[in-house]
Amino acid sequence: MKLVLAVVNNDDSAILSSALTKEGFSTTKLATTGGFLRAGNTTFLIGVEDDKVDAVIDIISKYSRQRTQTMPDPSVYGMGMYTNYPVEIKIGGATVFVVDVEKFVKL
Amino acid sequence: MKLVLAVVNNDDSAILSSALTKEGFSTTKLATTGGFLRAGNTTFLIGVEDDKVDAVIDIISKYSRQRTQTMPDPSVYGMGMYTNYPVEIKIGGATVFVVDVEKFVKL
Amino acid sequence: MKLVLAVVNNDDSAILSSALTKEGFSTTKLATTGGFLRAGNTTFLIGVEDDKVDAVIDIISKYSRQRTQTMPDPSVYGMGMYTNYPVEIKIGGATVFVVDVEKFVKL
Ligand code: NI
Ligand code: NI
Ligand code: NI
Repeated sequence: MKLVLAVVNNDDSAILSSALTKEGFSTTKLATTGGFLRAGNTTFLIGVEDDKVDAVIDIISKYSRQRTQTMPDPSVYGMGMYTNYPVEIKIGGATVFVVDVEKFVKL
Repeated sequence: MKLVLAVVNNDDSAILSSALTKEGFSTTKLATTGGFLRAGNTTFLIGVEDDKVDAVIDIISKYSRQRTQTMPDPSVYGMGMYTNYPVEIKIGGATVFVVDVEKFVKL
Repeated sequence: MKLVLAVVNNDDSAILSSALTKEGFSTTKLATTGGFLRAGNTTFLIGVEDDKVDAVIDIISKYSRQRTQTMPDPSVYGMGMYTNYPVEIKIGGATVFVVDVEKFVKL
């Protein structure tokens, strides 16, 4: 048994939670602030059999990996002039720790 | 030294907290949402000597084990008819992870 | 890779967070209640290379170790009389767990 601690962006928290539940993984969400990524993260605790760790990490990657999104350039120059070139911003991102569980009990 | 992570139902959180403190165990409660059980859980972090792990699990079991409660049947049939047979619902429940602690410091 | 879980007094949380970030450590803060110390704690999750564990513990010690502060004696005796002798109260304090990380992934 392993415990997966995953810190993900709040924006990806709901969809990741649904995906993990749908695949049969039990999760607990901790409200967190600041940290590994920008402010506004959620920490997931996921108890998982040793041979399912990679499957869990794949799901976390699919739904909360850091990716870029193209946005209109928000830069504004003097006298209201601005460029029309789009810029890429980074969204999402996850930090995952896998820890060994010596004893696991459901009561 | 071990770290016991216990996810318990909010309804059992206060009484479990008192019981652990009374038995001399130091606990930290994390507010959690959703997860291993129904929505509304509390995660306890309990630092404990190796030979006290079972004593902690016994206390968690005593105060937050899943159990059934008999309730009037809430089912309502057509035209306001309903059965009077009582039903059993499940309350409580806990998921416990025990993790090895390599270093423990009180500052 | 190690995961450092540090439960510190809320009063020391902001300055500790800044110090860890300034030294290049990534942290996640969990809101916590009650526990190892008096009510009002914050739990930090800090992912760190094996050879940096002591440096992290040194920073936690520097900013959130339990220390005494001299205060005017708040005791009040009968008829409004009170002593002028200052008393020492304890503030801060931290409980630190270091746990081995089997797998660490940034996504
Ligand atoms: Ni295992
Ligand atoms: Ni040990
Ligand atoms: Ni390691």
